[in-house]
Amino acid sequence: MIGVGVIGYGYWGPNLVRNFYETPGCRVVAVSDLNAERLVRARARYPTIDPVPDYRDLIADPRVHLVAIATPVCTHYDLAMQALRMGKHILIEKPMTGDVEQAQRLVEEAARRKLMLAVDHTFVYTGAVRKMRDLVASGDLGDIYYYDSVRVNLGLFQHDVNVVWDLAVHDLSIMDHLLPARPVAVSAAGLGHIPGEPENIGYVTFHFDSAVMAHVHVNWLAPVKVRRTLIGGSKKMIVYDDLEPSEKVKVYDKGITVNSAPSDGHAPGNGQRYAMLVGYRSGDVWAPQIDGAEALAVETRHLIDCITNNKTPIADGEAGLRVVRLLEAATESMRNSGRIVELSRSGVSA
Amino acid sequence: MIGVGVIGYGYWGPNLVRNFYETPGCRVVAVSDLNAERLVRARARYPTIDPVPDYRDLIADPRVHLVAIATPVCTHYDLAMQALRMGKHILIEKPMTGDVEQAQRLVEEAARRKLMLAVDHTFVYTGAVRKMRDLVASGDLGDIYYYDSVRVNLGLFQHDVNVVWDLAVHDLSIMDHLLPARPVAVSAAGLGHIPGEPENIGYVTFHFDSAVMAHVHVNWLAPVKVRRTLIGGSKKMIVYDDLEPSEKVKVYDKGITVNSAPSDGHAPGNGQRYAMLVGYRSGDVWAPQIDGAEALAVETRHLIDCITNNKTPIADGEAGLRVVRLLEAATESMRNSGRIVELSRSGVSA
Amino acid sequence: MIGVGVIGYGYWGPNLVRNFYETPGCRVVAVSDLNAERLVRARARYPTIDPVPDYRDLIADPRVHLVAIATPVCTHYDLAMQALRMGKHILIEKPMTGDVEQAQRLVEEAARRKLMLAVDHTFVYTGAVRKMRDLVASGDLGDIYYYDSVRVNLGLFQHDVNVVWDLAVHDLSIMDHLLPARPVAVSAAGLGHIPGEPENIGYVTFHFDSAVMAHVHVNWLAPVKVRRTLIGGSKKMIVYDDLEPSEKVKVYDKGITVNSAPSDGHAPGNGQRYAMLVGYRSGDVWAPQIDGAEALAVETRHLIDCITNNKTPIADGEAGLRVVRLLEAATESMRNSGRIVELSRSGVSA
Amino acid sequence: MIGVGVIGYGYWGPNLVRNFYETPGCRVVAVSDLNAERLVRARARYPTIDPVPDYRDLIADPRVHLVAIATPVCTHYDLAMQALRMGKHILIEKPMTGDVEQAQRLVEEAARRKLMLAVDHTFVYTGAVRKMRDLVASGDLGDIYYYDSVRVNLGLFQHDVNVVWDLAVHDLSIMDHLLPARPVAVSAAGLGHIPGEPENIGYVTFHFDSAVMAHVHVNWLAPVKVRRTLIGGSKKMIVYDDLEPSEKVKVYDKGITVNSAPSDGHAPGNGQRYAMLVGYRSGDVWAPQIDGAEALAVETRHLIDCITNNKTPIADGEAGLRVVRLLEAATESMRNSGRIVELSRSGVSA
Repeated sequence: MIGVGVIGYGYWGPNLVRNFYETPGCRVVAVSDLNAERLVRARARYPTIDPVPDYRDLIADPRVHLVAIATPVCTHYDLAMQALRMGKHILIEKPMTGDVEQAQRLVEEAARRKLMLAVDHTFVYTGAVRKMRDLVASGDLGDIYYYDSVRVNLGLFQHDVNVVWDLAVHDLSIMDHLLPARPVAVSAAGLGHIPGEPENIGYVTFHFDSAVMAHVHVNWLAPVKVRRTLIGGSKKMIVYDDLEPSEKVKVYDKGITVNSAPSDGHAPGNGQRYAMLVGYRSGDVWAPQIDGAEALAVETRHLIDCITNNKTPIADGEAGLRVVRLLEAATESMRNSGRIVELSRSGVSA
Repeated sequence: MIGVGVIGYGYWGPNLVRNFYETPGCRVVAVSDLNAERLVRARARYPTIDPVPDYRDLIADPRVHLVAIATPVCTHYDLAMQALRMGKHILIEKPMTGDVEQAQRLVEEAARRKLMLAVDHTFVYTGAVRKMRDLVASGDLGDIYYYDSVRVNLGLFQHDVNVVWDLAVHDLSIMDHLLPARPVAVSAAGLGHIPGEPENIGYVTFHFDSAVMAHVHVNWLAPVKVRRTLIGGSKKMIVYDDLEPSEKVKVYDKGITVNSAPSDGHAPGNGQRYAMLVGYRSGDVWAPQIDGAEALAVETRHLIDCITNNKTPIADGEAGLRVVRLLEAATESMRNSGRIVELSRSGVSA
Repeated sequence: MIGVGVIGYGYWGPNLVRNFYETPGCRVVAVSDLNAERLVRARARYPTIDPVPDYRDLIADPRVHLVAIATPVCTHYDLAMQALRMGKHILIEKPMTGDVEQAQRLVEEAARRKLMLAVDHTFVYTGAVRKMRDLVASGDLGDIYYYDSVRVNLGLFQHDVNVVWDLAVHDLSIMDHLLPARPVAVSAAGLGHIPGEPENIGYVTFHFDSAVMAHVHVNWLAPVKVRRTLIGGSKKMIVYDDLEPSEKVKVYDKGITVNSAPSDGHAPGNGQRYAMLVGYRSGDVWAPQIDGAEALAVETRHLIDCITNNKTPIADGEAGLRVVRLLEAATESMRNSGRIVELSRSGVSA
Repeated sequence: MIGVGVIGYGYWGPNLVRNFYETPGCRVVAVSDLNAERLVRARARYPTIDPVPDYRDLIADPRVHLVAIATPVCTHYDLAMQALRMGKHILIEKPMTGDVEQAQRLVEEAARRKLMLAVDHTFVYTGAVRKMRDLVASGDLGDIYYYDSVRVNLGLFQHDVNVVWDLAVHDLSIMDHLLPARPVAVSAAGLGHIPGEPENIGYVTFHFDSAVMAHVHVNWLAPVKVRRTLIGGSKKMIVYDDLEPSEKVKVYDKGITVNSAPSDGHAPGNGQRYAMLVGYRSGDVWAPQIDGAEALAVETRHLIDCITNNKTPIADGEAGLRVVRLLEAATESMRNSGRIVELSRSGVSA
């Protein structure tokens, strides 16, 4: 029986507690929060769980094997490092840390101690993303051409992070999970409309070594909510609309056919000649049935299984690090007029 | 009675002929095309119009006062310059020319000869864009924060121009018409998936001197057709969806309110304190009735009025030049890894 | 301080408890359910509320002033009558009773004892329906021409009531609240696809004395979920789509104009002549901001206010009776091949 | 080479002429219309076609083998009967005639003379309806449970026919083509909002001998345009939305499973026990690629093939008669307070 301790009982913490509470093979032992009122609420809801005002007591508790951290980003590193040093497995909210260096240290520490380091990239446990992962991995889409995502709404403006860290983190975690290739460079543009506040609009472009391209548009100041991703492949294409109550993932049997037959006679720039070589396919559309299970429930079961059977979680520290690296690079580019930021220049191997 | 000659009777030319044909105050005198079959078709439909195999005869025809040019982009400059030199008013298909220098020369020649030089930015004559123009100009939206457009589909791949010149030209003509400010720099990223062919995906960012930002996403290889523009203002925001059969323009009385009251006591990074200063407004949504008249009919009437009464057309040579300048800068940036291209660096004043 | 007792802690009961719990001016004293496990759950969540296995104890409890009944329909009458006889105010789930006679008796008993009898027509307390009520009442729509509702999905088949009692009850409660006129006759058609089970498809038509018409389509066996109501008026028309996350109510400034000018010269059947007399108006569309407050919270506050200040609730026993009368008539018509059932023939004045 | 003559060159006639004009194996010989201006227009467009002021000349023309009739409904019978008597094959606009008796006489006359009598039920030649026909005929949907159609808009009010004859005729032609069973009775309700004018709202229910039900809602006075049909089957269900630019037909692998295992122990009304016997299936959604060819082009080719090879057309006189019979019965029911009209009672075998 894995003992679980949760630090942070604000917005997301209660969801972690509820899901670990209902996950077989583990037991939520303690919850910690600086806010006394939240602990009262946790206690009322779960009389068997210890409310712990000082997180150090939770980390030191020998009954706790897994520490789940749902606190502000700036505290992730310290809390996680302390818990690792106490020999605890870790689950951290996304983004894993506030910078690449911290993320790397956590990855190294966990590796050295042979502890599980997981990041709560919840979206990769949704039925929709799991289905898309299967479609990409099976080769049904063919070569991936592009990944394009729009995630905008009239949002809760954050004050400590910009819109890329707040919203694009979701897209990056999904992209990291779905795409076989990794970006090698990032460029980004953004703008803040409230003086002194971080950027509330961001456009981030991801460059790859191969003929793949990714782009994410995030915006806290949009009149409508949009959560829509297009994935283009050489064989099929996907529209993933997370706001659709059903048919979230649609697979289009559409594309182009390029006739690569020798056309030696044509002069360069002979548009007419080329034109005959490109064709369009348009077939059926298919919306596969999506598993509607709560993503976090799938995740907590998976994590307990990883600890119990010594497996690497789907969204591990490396995934968390890769996403933080992209977020950091995007922000660096945004602050430098969209200058391309090579990921190797961050001093970290991709 | 203004005499009109149309060069090019391929895809768009017949629409020009039909609309000028039905416009009071003018008369379509001649149509020219290299393709004999097309001339036969024009003749069958309009027995009163002269089919002219050699465009030079059309340009030289003293009955022709306005030459409308609907041929491939690479021919625009030569045809227009010849016609201007024969003292003809000009309407050119968009994009006006293939490069900035040509566009400038046409603008100068027309100015010197006091001839009308119009570019067929058809969208600015639609009911939807005219309504949005009124909304922006009246100040109803407040300060403009951003302009974001997505124009994607499984498209007719072009061979002589990339997707930005083919699709983004529409957005740029609309943006040029709607926004009070002009971009000062452009950056762009794009990718081609067919070897030897131009880019079929493009993301173009437009930078301004003020706190405005514009972005256009164009793609010939998308599974679904999208024509959607978001315009954010400090007071109201617009969603313009050109595929909606009705309610193309929706005005959202939504936004943020920023309390600029002194908050001197707060420590840096005190998110809680800041958080109270940003509020959200969410009011009614309003879809104004849109004039459904054919845009090209509005345009041809407008142009005949301009010639008759010596007025400057809404989409004049300057507008055509500005759009070409943006297209050229976007392509330059795309070919240089997204490097920012300052518009003054193009040697042209914005 | 009004004491509230809730009978039934199954699907809806917990919502009643939660909302009364948070309503100022009242206190939830006791909850009753035949199922012991549910009482344990209620106790765990609300330690201050008494779990009462025998509802008679709840009804007899002098601390209870208002009894809320959320049990199967067939038990409503007995529970409510017993509670009324103990001098309690009543809130009953919809439909109020299983037949008209029971509903009438409850109305009479409550009137005699001067007790509040309310029916939980939750929809009439939603922001959307309240907004539509204002629009109808203010005369903005003009004369009401029709009310048309579709409420279909792949549903939980019920075994004790047909789809009309299960789904159309919502529409009838809304219609009863919105329309100034009352139906005078009902006809209905329906079909059951599972032998021995009640009808799972129903089409119900409501006839009025005036030029109004209402129709409700309900279906438990539809591939998609639809919740859409059209309300036609002589001046404006409404589309109410309850599945829209925003813009649930759209007001269309559309309609026909009938030129009633004397046209004495025309012969009967002269279509051409008539044709010139009918015109079409098409103006703006407007989606008013809708109060997003939880309907049940609005309702519980309203009911406590009614008891405290001796007012008649919006959805009172008369409203509950009128809805039951329509449901009964619809079922009678359905079982008689769609024969028109006059509402006066039910022996009840409308 | 089949010679074609078209009578009526108003709204639909030009479409007939254009499509026959482009159909191999036939030649449009003559067009007739009472309106001289329309004949001028036809002549200008098709110089090879004879404009014929008097339709009798067209009917008598020995070069004409097929007479297509696109005139007001009230003239269909006379024109068609005269043409049949001159030995011509016939295509008549829908609805075929204004009453059942006329339709029967035309069917009999055509049969006696061994001439083709076709009705222009254009929808049955669309890619969408042909695809649905295949799905129904192949048994993929299982047993058909219901057919439900909504066809509403702010429409052109007609003066000589009510909304059922004008709009429901489309649904009836589709239903007649798709459903294996034929209705045995009809009931309908409707209302007119303009004094002296026909009904502008109609609800028509079709009853069958088997457990099938059909319903059509038509309305000329709706704020939005809807063209949506639901078809429920025991295995799969269809949503057919004719306004969707793509994905017009969606097939839902959804439904209920009924466990018919003996449940001898249960008492009547024991909902719990029954409840366990009904299950819900929810699988993939599939939007098959639809042939986008113009329906009328498919139809004209089919008709020329039928004449040439002596085949019976898909939409023959019998189909036209069946649809007229349903329209007549619906109107009869509407004028009799929704009384069920048995189709055998119309004196016509179904």
